[in-house]
Amino acid sequence: MDTSYMLHTDTARRLYALVQNLPIIDYHCHLSPEQIDADLPFDNIGEVWLAGDHYKWRLMRAAGIPERYITGDAGWHDKFIGYISALELAAGNPLYHWSQMELALYFDVRLPLAAENAEQIWMQANAAIADRKLSPCRLMQMAGVEYAATTDDPVDDLVYHRRMRTDGNLKCRITPSFRTDKVLQIRQGGYAGYIQKLGEVCGFQIKSLEQLQRALTDRLDFFVENGCRFTDVGIAAFPEVVGDEAGANAAFRKALAGDPVNDREYAAFLGWMYVFLAGAYKQRGLVMQWHLAAYRNANTLLYDLCGADAGGDCIGDCICADWLIRVLDAIHRSSGLPKTVLYTLNPAMAPQLCSIAGCFPEVLCGAAWWFCDHLRGIRAQICNIAEIGYLGSFLGMLTDSRSFLSYARHDYFRRIFCDVVGGWVENGEYDATAAQKLVRSVCYENLQRLTGDIR
Amino acid sequence: MDTSYMLHTDTARRLYALVQNLPIIDYHCHLSPEQIDADLPFDNIGEVWLAGDHYKWRLMRAAGIPERYITGDAGWHDKFIGYISALELAAGNPLYHWSQMELALYFDVRLPLAAENAEQIWMQANAAIADRKLSPCRLMQMAGVEYAATTDDPVDDLVYHRRMRTDGNLKCRITPSFRTDKVLQIRQGGYAGYIQKLGEVCGFQIKSLEQLQRALTDRLDFFVENGCRFTDVGIAAFPEVVGDEAGANAAFRKALAGDPVNDREYAAFLGWMYVFLAGAYKQRGLVMQWHLAAYRNANTLLYDLCGADAGGDCIGDCICADWLIRVLDAIHRSSGLPKTVLYTLNPAMAPQLCSIAGCFPEVLCGAAWWFCDHLRGIRAQICNIAEIGYLGSFLGMLTDSRSFLSYARHDYFRRIFCDVVGGWVENGEYDATAAQKLVRSVCYENLQRLTGDIR
Amino acid sequence: MDTSYMLHTDTARRLYALVQNLPIIDYHCHLSPEQIDADLPFDNIGEVWLAGDHYKWRLMRAAGIPERYITGDAGWHDKFIGYISALELAAGNPLYHWSQMELALYFDVRLPLAAENAEQIWMQANAAIADRKLSPCRLMQMAGVEYAATTDDPVDDLVYHRRMRTDGNLKCRITPSFRTDKVLQIRQGGYAGYIQKLGEVCGFQIKSLEQLQRALTDRLDFFVENGCRFTDVGIAAFPEVVGDEAGANAAFRKALAGDPVNDREYAAFLGWMYVFLAGAYKQRGLVMQWHLAAYRNANTLLYDLCGADAGGDCIGDCICADWLIRVLDAIHRSSGLPKTVLYTLNPAMAPQLCSIAGCFPEVLCGAAWWFCDHLRGIRAQICNIAEIGYLGSFLGMLTDSRSFLSYARHDYFRRIFCDVVGGWVENGEYDATAAQKLVRSVCYENLQRLTGDIR
Repeated sequence: MDTSYMLHTDTARRLYALVQNLPIIDYHCHLSPEQIDADLPFDNIGEVWLAGDHYKWRLMRAAGIPERYITGDAGWHDKFIGYISALELAAGNPLYHWSQMELALYFDVRLPLAAENAEQIWMQANAAIADRKLSPCRLMQMAGVEYAATTDDPVDDLVYHRRMRTDGNLKCRITPSFRTDKVLQIRQGGYAGYIQKLGEVCGFQIKSLEQLQRALTDRLDFFVENGCRFTDVGIAAFPEVVGDEAGANAAFRKALAGDPVNDREYAAFLGWMYVFLAGAYKQRGLVMQWHLAAYRNANTLLYDLCGADAGGDCIGDCICADWLIRVLDAIHRSSGLPKTVLYTLNPAMAPQLCSIAGCFPEVLCGAAWWFCDHLRGIRAQICNIAEIGYLGSFLGMLTDSRSFLSYARHDYFRRIFCDVVGGWVENGEYDATAAQKLVRSVCYENLQRLTGDIR
Repeated sequence: MDTSYMLHTDTARRLYALVQNLPIIDYHCHLSPEQIDADLPFDNIGEVWLAGDHYKWRLMRAAGIPERYITGDAGWHDKFIGYISALELAAGNPLYHWSQMELALYFDVRLPLAAENAEQIWMQANAAIADRKLSPCRLMQMAGVEYAATTDDPVDDLVYHRRMRTDGNLKCRITPSFRTDKVLQIRQGGYAGYIQKLGEVCGFQIKSLEQLQRALTDRLDFFVENGCRFTDVGIAAFPEVVGDEAGANAAFRKALAGDPVNDREYAAFLGWMYVFLAGAYKQRGLVMQWHLAAYRNANTLLYDLCGADAGGDCIGDCICADWLIRVLDAIHRSSGLPKTVLYTLNPAMAPQLCSIAGCFPEVLCGAAWWFCDHLRGIRAQICNIAEIGYLGSFLGMLTDSRSFLSYARHDYFRRIFCDVVGGWVENGEYDATAAQKLVRSVCYENLQRLTGDIR
Repeated sequence: MDTSYMLHTDTARRLYALVQNLPIIDYHCHLSPEQIDADLPFDNIGEVWLAGDHYKWRLMRAAGIPERYITGDAGWHDKFIGYISALELAAGNPLYHWSQMELALYFDVRLPLAAENAEQIWMQANAAIADRKLSPCRLMQMAGVEYAATTDDPVDDLVYHRRMRTDGNLKCRITPSFRTDKVLQIRQGGYAGYIQKLGEVCGFQIKSLEQLQRALTDRLDFFVENGCRFTDVGIAAFPEVVGDEAGANAAFRKALAGDPVNDREYAAFLGWMYVFLAGAYKQRGLVMQWHLAAYRNANTLLYDLCGADAGGDCIGDCICADWLIRVLDAIHRSSGLPKTVLYTLNPAMAPQLCSIAGCFPEVLCGAAWWFCDHLRGIRAQICNIAEIGYLGSFLGMLTDSRSFLSYARHDYFRRIFCDVVGGWVENGEYDATAAQKLVRSVCYENLQRLTGDIR
């Protein structure tokens, strides 16, 4: 992209020059370790862009494109043409910006995103894929990724991660993250089966909460041995209370037996587990990430048709301060808080969340996430953290993405961040020298410190 | 107004030139069909501006003007002088912008809005009223209105609409909209009387939910025969659940009998009716509009003095995602969703609402409404839709107004919209050619498509 | 500070020149009357800045500075060095702006806020303290404070206020405000003891609600005799209902007896008391201030270590419209509303609160408060009031601060206010002459009118 894109002042451009080529540490993504390990070249830009990307599917549906060209049996070419047509009037949407940037960065395509250019973009991009032999690792290398933390289930055998750890050719460090959603969702269908699988992986039967906790610490140790440094949870529910072990155990046993677990019991289980897991993370020096206020699968017909992660998710309600504070404070009083990063999908809750984080020095707010991850949302979150928290310890950008092209978003973030800070400097509200230190800290060094000790 | 008002870049001004003179399709307003049909010339600007305009009354109260000069027995001249005095320090209020624009557009008055100019504005504006023979239709014609959808009760005989349909002189198409508030508010005093009236209009007694539904479909068919294309509901309550017919029927019968209906029963009735009405709209190809999060008549002394719509309303609480999703998803699974437009009065809920709408391709978010309908609010809602939804299908501006002068707000919206999109183009964030297509779509063509087929 | 700081247009600078040197009326602060009365010279900038300022403590904790250098036994020099180091990367934080402004205004120090300058800032500032004999009254005089309303408990004997009233040398009028938090928090430990003390001050035993009310009106009369013009409440809870005297009395007696008071009983007591107190204020022509949506002492280990007001507070949840409206409307129907100012700590609730205030002409929204009191938050609140309320009656800035240096925040506010209004004038959205009147009204004259009659 051109060096003034998203950069409105000279100071912003000077700051950006300092961080533009710093490596990328992507501390939370949903890339497939299997795909990275296999590293097969891509076939066409339709597949690269549209296979599994529910952000793009939603936009196409909103633009009136039939489902056949979205998740149906149409070919990649036709789907791609549909997507470009949808983009034409998608002004202000982050997909427009990202698509612009990805086309320029990886494919050297700079045509306007309009239906009339769709065929030409298709051909030029596919030619670049062939010429440049674009594959997962090649794309990550082009973007300068030096570290990526994938999102993995505790039952995962980490076979690809283990293989990649010993692969001398891999330029980038790929580590697993410990994602506990399936462990916590005791009201989900198939829970008993999942726990049985967890038991099998651990080599003992899980019949009680105590055994569950033992299994989780076993898996956690296994993950840490294989480079895990980050953990994550993103379930819709958040516990209102922190109860005692007996209540949590009772709820867990009900779930194992297939009996219905009511709201109160579910909260009791969750509250206990949040405190337990945080203690285990603290002990191992891991980062704990909470993804709050997501509402999943709102459109049940779409879910029946396409399953989860198909574009039927939305922003959940604000979570009560009381609930969040009870759990954070309970962890603080019990084990002490691990380094914790809070994300919320509901921007109405973001200033409050920054103020809650600020009550506990180990707790940070993370970057604008998912529906908030756009130009205005990123600017707003930078300001929230600056105003209510402390920008100096901000961990900056992560992709949270399933797409190998999405590393352009780090460039997007860096431009926006430098533009915000540069604007402050130009207005006499911040010191020019400190600004240089700040942009390097937030765009790279804070994360380098956090991930450096285990590499 | 001058061609740079609200337009900050050359691109914005060029885009505005493309839409400035496009006709206006006002798909939701509260104009009086009787007044349009009678088309009597206005007497003075005090009456035109201040009769029934609770936006202005609130501002005057906040400025400390006694009620006598607001809704009391003072003359139009004195009330007008009071209003202009209040405006003088009402910087940043949309009434300031609208008053500026209306004076320029209809009366050619360009004096600063200050107490010392009030008499002169009064005289100049009244002279323009006399010279130009300003009347409802004349004002609508000056603004370029080609279509206006009024808001009508199901019991209405649409006598004025029917007369206007056959009036060859009327330049503008005036259609009724089906507003179901009175049907749904079963806890309101006088409900049984209202239903009796509905039964009389339909020619049969309404004693059960089934009969109510039959009456409503009869009225809906009558409305559609008379040009109805849009429906609307704006009650404060929103159903938490979608229950079954038996529960809804029980609640309805209680209401008819004058027995108290509790929260749970009310929700059961509402949930059932929302799904039923949506199905009836879908079948007839009508647009369904929901106006959410309004809180009415907060000041009971004011209500006792002046009745409803007197300036005692405010922004209601955010509605739970769960409630909205349950009803939308139930409609989707039952009849399929009609084209649906959601508005919220609470801006804290707007990004979430855009994300919920985005789960269902037939559902759109509407323009910034009422307390949100100001420069910053309109910009914010354009951005919300752009970022989280899809700007290409946005239906743009509607007045939601009782005032014949309020068509200046379409010009206000077009200026702001072109300024936002023009800014993106100037920043290299959007394509200049696509922008031309976009502003025409949002300011006129999307609505032309929607209303065109029935005219 | 330089005359362009925070001022981006010529009009903004011209407007600022009109208000820059107007006196300051600080109608709500937490300054210590004892310290003002004693007026002892300060020793060093570390003490002035860091003793008791939990805003700064939070920032230091977030920057990773050990508690010993925050609230611990380290010396002022070392604490000061720590604070400056934390500021270096605190871009966008209001503390950065305030520190810049305070150093320039009181100490003539204009060095960049960076660790490498910390020693030099320490020396220059301390030299200025010595040279200029900086003391509480000297600082207030330098800032041009002509009126300050402190925050005082009903049991307070106002000894310092009484002494200051007769002190001919004091350039500034210092008045007490009636803060009822301790009276209302019947579930707080030590409540019975507090009420006993209140009884002793009044000269009779308080055993019933009626006696409590008599005691409070006695104290209120005493406060008014000593210049009180403003009242305040800032407790976390807000009553959901307005019950009857019997319910309130029952809850009060339980609290006196040390019995647990449940949520319902607490709400009954609070609702009754809010209406009672408002009536007493109305009768005496006092201003009623409500500080809403604060959540206190979220971090219990920190509370155990440092007590209240130590940096462990955060933004509370939005308060239901229904609750607020019930209480406001009950007061309106009972005694009529006194001049009322509403503040909320949760910015997601601010537009709604402006709309609720707008239903009652005596009710205003106050300036951006605490976690919202920063450049972007102040701008947002000015816009909220302008758009949904009426800027002409806005009471402008107050410090709400414990620091004698914080009067720089009035300058901060005036710059931001003039910048916002100046921007509107430059854009043709507001009249230049009216703007001059507006900035004087909001920055000084509205308050002068409000406080003038009792001085």
